[in-house]
Amino acid sequence: MRFELLASDAASSARLGRVSTAHGAFETPAFMPVGTHGAVKALSPCDLQAAGAQIVLSNTYHLSLRPGTNVVKAIGGLHRFMGWPGPLLTDSGGYQVFSLAPMRKVTDDGVEFRSHIDGALSFLGPEEAVRIQRDLGADIAMVLDECIPYPADRDIACQAVDRSIQWAARCRSAHSPRAAHAGHEGSQALFGIVQGSIHEDLRERCARELVAIGFDGYAIGGLSVGEPIEQMLEVAGFTAARLPADRPRYLMGVGTPADIVRAVALGIDMFDCVMPTRNGRNGQAFTSDGLLRLRGARYRDDARPIEDGCPCEACAGSERVKNPEGSSNAKRPLAFSRAYLRHCVNVNEMLGLRLISLHNVTFYCGLMARIRAAIRQGVLGEFAEAFLGAYGKDGDDTEEG
Amino acid sequence: MRFELLASDAASSARLGRVSTAHGAFETPAFMPVGTHGAVKALSPCDLQAAGAQIVLSNTYHLSLRPGTNVVKAIGGLHRFMGWPGPLLTDSGGYQVFSLAPMRKVTDDGVEFRSHIDGALSFLGPEEAVRIQRDLGADIAMVLDECIPYPADRDIACQAVDRSIQWAARCRSAHSPRAAHAGHEGSQALFGIVQGSIHEDLRERCARELVAIGFDGYAIGGLSVGEPIEQMLEVAGFTAARLPADRPRYLMGVGTPADIVRAVALGIDMFDCVMPTRNGRNGQAFTSDGLLRLRGARYRDDARPIEDGCPCEACAGSERVKNPEGSSNAKRPLAFSRAYLRHCVNVNEMLGLRLISLHNVTFYCGLMARIRAAIRQGVLGEFAEAFLGAYGKDGDDTEEG
Repeated sequence: MRFELLASDAASSARLGRVSTAHGAFETPAFMPVGTHGAVKALSPCDLQAAGAQIVLSNTYHLSLRPGTNVVKAIGGLHRFMGWPGPLLTDSGGYQVFSLAPMRKVTDDGVEFRSHIDGALSFLGPEEAVRIQRDLGADIAMVLDECIPYPADRDIACQAVDRSIQWAARCRSAHSPRAAHAGHEGSQALFGIVQGSIHEDLRERCARELVAIGFDGYAIGGLSVGEPIEQMLEVAGFTAARLPADRPRYLMGVGTPADIVRAVALGIDMFDCVMPTRNGRNGQAFTSDGLLRLRGARYRDDARPIEDGCPCEACAGSERVKNPEGSSNAKRPLAFSRAYLRHCVNVNEMLGLRLISLHNVTFYCGLMARIRAAIRQGVLGEFAEAFLGAYGKDGDDTEEG
Repeated sequence: MRFELLASDAASSARLGRVSTAHGAFETPAFMPVGTHGAVKALSPCDLQAAGAQIVLSNTYHLSLRPGTNVVKAIGGLHRFMGWPGPLLTDSGGYQVFSLAPMRKVTDDGVEFRSHIDGALSFLGPEEAVRIQRDLGADIAMVLDECIPYPADRDIACQAVDRSIQWAARCRSAHSPRAAHAGHEGSQALFGIVQGSIHEDLRERCARELVAIGFDGYAIGGLSVGEPIEQMLEVAGFTAARLPADRPRYLMGVGTPADIVRAVALGIDMFDCVMPTRNGRNGQAFTSDGLLRLRGARYRDDARPIEDGCPCEACAGSERVKNPEGSSNAKRPLAFSRAYLRHCVNVNEMLGLRLISLHNVTFYCGLMARIRAAIRQGVLGEFAEAFLGAYGKDGDDTEEG
């Protein structure tokens, strides 16, 4: 993996960059749609490319339970399995073990846990996390860290930081000791994860020790777990400022469009969040004016698309008209009205959920493109002010339901 | 609507034709995917075009309950509502009233029934069926007929035929008395429906009286409702032979790939069936070798696509790589393995259901294209023999589950 820093914003900590991997490059700041079970819910790789996604995240925990890492490996790795040809990041599985498993026992060795599917006993330690992610073959792997809930006592947070640093070092050793640091595109990158809850001294120490170990990139974990937004941004900015400028910075699990715009100004390069797809499946569409809750009666006979000017299949129809016979009289499919999408949601027609999810991922990826253009042009501050001013003004609600 | 008969098979009753409507033309023999709630389940109009579908069917009963015909009309009609720019056929709603409504009272006037959604009392007569379908604006509308179960006493079947003929005449009068017969592309066509259960004399009388009234096309209804396949084909062939050669013939609700191949040889031009999408949602994929039940453990690490050579997104990946920014390094999405599709079905990942449905509709539309090519080349008999010989030989089962 290779990271190029292309520009830095004069008025903020925002950066423009490019990450090159064996499966292609992605521009930063980047948004990664989340493919929990090896699929970004309702969307195909073709949909994701059309939406402008350049990198996708997939969850190790879910894949290792079903279908099992061995199946993915037998098919030729996760890219081939998912049908996604571009850059791919896998998490360590730790976050889901800590949030989903019905039983878990944490020791310095790792985590013993039971599957939330069938209760089967399993063990995940740093070496296992590295081995599984190597079998999956993602372009970017994440270290195993200990995730704690919010709020957490300082003692608990301190212990989790100690353990996360030890595990990170073991992941580094098991992965490819320092070799990846040469900036070679072809090998799997490994990112460290800074923990420390909302305690700045813990965050600072964790960042320092991880940088001493040396990783290809650094994530900020343990945020967006219930703390107030302002506190999340404060800790993210504090932590980002303590990470090396020549490595990408990834704020895990964040967030709303407004969170992302603000976090970019703090120096964050990568984001992931289930909101575009989860809200899409709930019939909620993101727009520059805020969130539209399409189940609402107000959209019953609203002939407008979700958002004028959006290039997605829901808002603009599609150019794809050729068929296997190359029939010449096929017309371009039409755009979809809010009334139609509301109808689909109300009758549980999965096409509606897919179209709204596709719109939402297009909105997120389009937002990142607008952010990158603003950094390139040196107008990020103006862009952010205009975006944050408009967002939520005319939507029927401003945040996730 | 205009029907051109382009070729007739010398060795059978098969015909090659073209139907032109205000929304474009479709070639016959044609297969119509079924859009129950104004959407072909899991598939977008763009998917349907890519699959080779040239005409789509939508169900009046479901649309009139939700979102209501007035909503569809307000949005600009069913084409605009669904986003489907091509030829569109609506049924009369009668079949669903007779099969789904929890209460119904049939008189010569029409059917009083309760909605299966909320129990609301409603009435559907010939004039209402015509008015609703005019509001929806489909290119082809169907008359209201009385649908009876199989088996049915001759007396019941006879009464249903009498009533269906009277209703057909009233639909004709309410629709556009004889005007559509000029072969004009722009106006909505109206098809009559031949009933008569398995009784040939009733079928013959019904066909004769409908032809005397005069319709733009003729459907054969009341089949594929539980009778043996051989009997279905016998009645379909008998009835088709009593319909005018210069009008398209539509065998409603049929059927399996093998049924379609055999019915084409009897002179049928149009088909509709929910099997491609229903079986797709059950994880069952159609191939030239028969049906693959992809939930099966045998596909756990099967790296092959559903069917080699199939052009669908599931089997061949996709050419669609451009994104809103026109990013240049995007690679072509990869094809999907049976193992991946099985995984998606097993974890309820809707992408899998969509991909299998897309494959199945592509298979059905591709079958129609192969049938048309065989008629054009005068080799339908050879094609049918080879197809029917291979179908079911190597699939893991031969028919619908």
